[in-house]
Amino acid sequence: MQFSAAQVAMLINGSVEGDGSVTVGSFGKIEEAQKGQLAFLANPKYEDYLYSTCASVVIVNNTLELRQPVQSTLIRVADAYTAFASLLHKYQEIMTQQLSGIQEPSYVALTASMGENVFLGAFAYVSENVKIGNNVKIFPGVFLGNNVQVGDNTIIHAGVKIYHDCKVGANVTIHAGTVIGSDGFGFAPQADGTYQKVPQIGNVVIEDYVEIGANTTIDRATIGSTMIRTGAKLDNLIQIAHNAEIGKNTVIAAQAGVSGSTKIGSHVQIGGQAGIVGHLQIADGSRINAQSGVTKSIKTKNTAVTGTPAFDYTSSLRSQAMTRNLPDMEKRIAELEKLVQQLIEERVNI
Amino acid sequence: MQFSAAQVAMLINGSVEGDGSVTVGSFGKIEEAQKGQLAFLANPKYEDYLYSTCASVVIVNNTLELRQPVQSTLIRVADAYTAFASLLHKYQEIMTQQLSGIQEPSYVALTASMGENVFLGAFAYVSENVKIGNNVKIFPGVFLGNNVQVGDNTIIHAGVKIYHDCKVGANVTIHAGTVIGSDGFGFAPQADGTYQKVPQIGNVVIEDYVEIGANTTIDRATIGSTMIRTGAKLDNLIQIAHNAEIGKNTVIAAQAGVSGSTKIGSHVQIGGQAGIVGHLQIADGSRINAQSGVTKSIKTKNTAVTGTPAFDYTSSLRSQAMTRNLPDMEKRIAELEKLVQQLIEERVNI
Amino acid sequence: MQFSAAQVAMLINGSVEGDGSVTVGSFGKIEEAQKGQLAFLANPKYEDYLYSTCASVVIVNNTLELRQPVQSTLIRVADAYTAFASLLHKYQEIMTQQLSGIQEPSYVALTASMGENVFLGAFAYVSENVKIGNNVKIFPGVFLGNNVQVGDNTIIHAGVKIYHDCKVGANVTIHAGTVIGSDGFGFAPQADGTYQKVPQIGNVVIEDYVEIGANTTIDRATIGSTMIRTGAKLDNLIQIAHNAEIGKNTVIAAQAGVSGSTKIGSHVQIGGQAGIVGHLQIADGSRINAQSGVTKSIKTKNTAVTGTPAFDYTSSLRSQAMTRNLPDMEKRIAELEKLVQQLIEERVNI
Repeated sequence: MQFSAAQVAMLINGSVEGDGSVTVGSFGKIEEAQKGQLAFLANPKYEDYLYSTCASVVIVNNTLELRQPVQSTLIRVADAYTAFASLLHKYQEIMTQQLSGIQEPSYVALTASMGENVFLGAFAYVSENVKIGNNVKIFPGVFLGNNVQVGDNTIIHAGVKIYHDCKVGANVTIHAGTVIGSDGFGFAPQADGTYQKVPQIGNVVIEDYVEIGANTTIDRATIGSTMIRTGAKLDNLIQIAHNAEIGKNTVIAAQAGVSGSTKIGSHVQIGGQAGIVGHLQIADGSRINAQSGVTKSIKTKNTAVTGTPAFDYTSSLRSQAMTRNLPDMEKRIAELEKLVQQLIEERVNI
Repeated sequence: MQFSAAQVAMLINGSVEGDGSVTVGSFGKIEEAQKGQLAFLANPKYEDYLYSTCASVVIVNNTLELRQPVQSTLIRVADAYTAFASLLHKYQEIMTQQLSGIQEPSYVALTASMGENVFLGAFAYVSENVKIGNNVKIFPGVFLGNNVQVGDNTIIHAGVKIYHDCKVGANVTIHAGTVIGSDGFGFAPQADGTYQKVPQIGNVVIEDYVEIGANTTIDRATIGSTMIRTGAKLDNLIQIAHNAEIGKNTVIAAQAGVSGSTKIGSHVQIGGQAGIVGHLQIADGSRINAQSGVTKSIKTKNTAVTGTPAFDYTSSLRSQAMTRNLPDMEKRIAELEKLVQQLIEERVNI
Repeated sequence: MQFSAAQVAMLINGSVEGDGSVTVGSFGKIEEAQKGQLAFLANPKYEDYLYSTCASVVIVNNTLELRQPVQSTLIRVADAYTAFASLLHKYQEIMTQQLSGIQEPSYVALTASMGENVFLGAFAYVSENVKIGNNVKIFPGVFLGNNVQVGDNTIIHAGVKIYHDCKVGANVTIHAGTVIGSDGFGFAPQADGTYQKVPQIGNVVIEDYVEIGANTTIDRATIGSTMIRTGAKLDNLIQIAHNAEIGKNTVIAAQAGVSGSTKIGSHVQIGGQAGIVGHLQIADGSRINAQSGVTKSIKTKNTAVTGTPAFDYTSSLRSQAMTRNLPDMEKRIAELEKLVQQLIEERVNI
């Protein structure tokens, strides 16, 4: 897809400065952009790049005053960043809408149903009684187990596996390789030292506007549902265990893990590689630092914690800093011991 | 599948109280169950739910005395939890046994062999000389490399990849997205600063009754075998490196990692996100806490360790608690310094 | 494939001692090898195994003096380990070269192009405008998005997913289940508490001679490219976030994570489960210990760090050791307090 500077200007209500017939087909950073690319300049700090960039078209603020001539065609708008971002959104929408139709070979059970304008890539597998909404895009190699439901406008990337009975809401995005609804890790120790599996017959429910990264795993509940609430955003390689609940608009960074039956509130932020043990309650608005190990419920809203075991952010940082000073503290103690010993000996000698 | 309360009662040797013709098709928790679901009440703490549940049928203990009338049909048995669990097991068995036959399109090399009552989902790939036992269930999109062996009754979920020459025992379950037999991470540093790959020509051997979670990775041995012993249970997103050995009935929680050539004993418990460095021996019955970093062999059986680097659980917890008290300790030292200084000055003044 | 001892000797310029017609078909460790296997003895420590091994053929050093008769056929060479390693390399090369041709069913867009001697496994998916070089081996179930480029001699294992516009160099190996080019984790907080997705329209560029393990995830850049430089080696289950850069010949162990826009220099070594926060610069030759949490840029080359937050290796180890001694330090402070109190009281009493 190629657009002229004039066409782009129309889309974002901008005014063209320079050759409006120049065309662009992709986006670039102003410092790296090539001929044929569209860039933007919002931060005055980067203005120098404007005079050396190879971008064919650059979106700039109305208020910008040029210090020297430019090679690129400029499009002036009220807010260059917002205009650029809205173009990106439109571009992604168009790219997604282009995907349509059922590719062959794919496997669709007779009892499955699909809405309108669905894309089903080759090698995708749709089991019995699956219900797929309108405008859903299912990439190649996706597996949907029996009775899976997928809401409107949801995008499921290549090789995602969703086990039977799980429900995915509308406007959800799930990235490649992610597994939804695998068995929870439940085994009952037996007298002979072996473990007997506890059947995992619940499911996973993912509400609307959730995004889940690549190669993440969300286990089904033992009974009931593992819940991912509306608007939650999960990064890559995250583990969500059985019967956990992730609250509304909660954000979890890569490689974090949430253990079984733990209930995370809404608007919580969990850093990368953090771990939360099972059966806890994490209050709304909590912030859990990267690599923290949370071993107790957080009962007060908007609490920030860090460390393993995690506790209050400020005092934890102070303890961490002091840990570095331990060699110094040890020296002070040794010095005190020497002085006190001297005092004692002198006293005796008196 | 629908069962009447009377049919369920027969399966678990229970007696019906109420309408025996009521039917159920799935399971639920007593506090969440819907009409058409079967629930149980074992813990007296939850008895209140019995009077408000929408479950059509509830399994209860013989000893239960009703405080008020109930809507649900009851089935009385000696032990409600055990009866419910046995129903779950039967249900899962039936669901698994229903899977049978070779779906098309799938890819099966002419030299591969399969036992009786095998299920092979569409888009599954079976390479040369693969040997698949009886009652094996292979879900869609599974890849089995050359010479792979799979024992009887084993279940391999969607999108599992097993590289050439690996052996999977009987009654094993492997969850979706897991990779078995990828190359060990072995590279020899060269004089020019590059790395030369060390060929990884061993395999992975998974013994019987092992369960492995989703998106876990188990690398093949450089030479010889990476071993997962009978009855071991591995959760999701775990890394097992080349030539490692996981002992019998050892349990490893999600996102833990075991480095190369480390030998974990039997009945060991490893917490989530724990890491164990290479070439160690971990004694039988060891317990390694979540997020621990184990840097030395554990030679005494049944030792519990925690922390990074991990050491003895009790003293490690004491050190952790003291770390929190560091600001307080520093104050005590400063106070001592002041007092000792006063004592010294007074002495001089005398 | 079967080779006689005489054939093997010719390949490695060795001399046969014993029956040259004995055949071998695979490799084994000298202590575990079976009949029909080839082993080697380089380390004199293992010489005892030479007299008990079942290996049909053993490669030994010219200098070895037998203490007793052996069952195996020996092949004498100048350096047994090097000779064995070169055989492994030849073996792997032959195994890889045997893979050739387009298996059916696979999906190849009309606008895609492929070089010579390409292997494309069944259920592989090649999108529009994909360019695949010569001798590329693409295993079953691989997904290549629109415009993906793959250089000569590259091996992509089963079920790898590469999103649109990403570039993979020559002589690269990517292991099963890995995802390249999934969206970076970018969401802009909105006034109403929800998050709006920031479109991720960059790509991932993987240069030549890179190896990437299983189930690793490398996110595409927001704009521009996430870079994996020549010769870098990544293990399993690693997270590389958007716009990160991994330098030449840098080695990253399993389950480590690199956050957004962080730039790792060349010849860096990152231990397992280590995490590096975003927007940092890590100097060439840095060594980051396993499970470390790096929160600040490392500006001096060849610096070793450990701990969370990570700092200088030696002083960090000293602090860790002292942390263990905290109970002892607390006792020393309490003893000092007692003594000083006595001194003060005595002084008052005088």
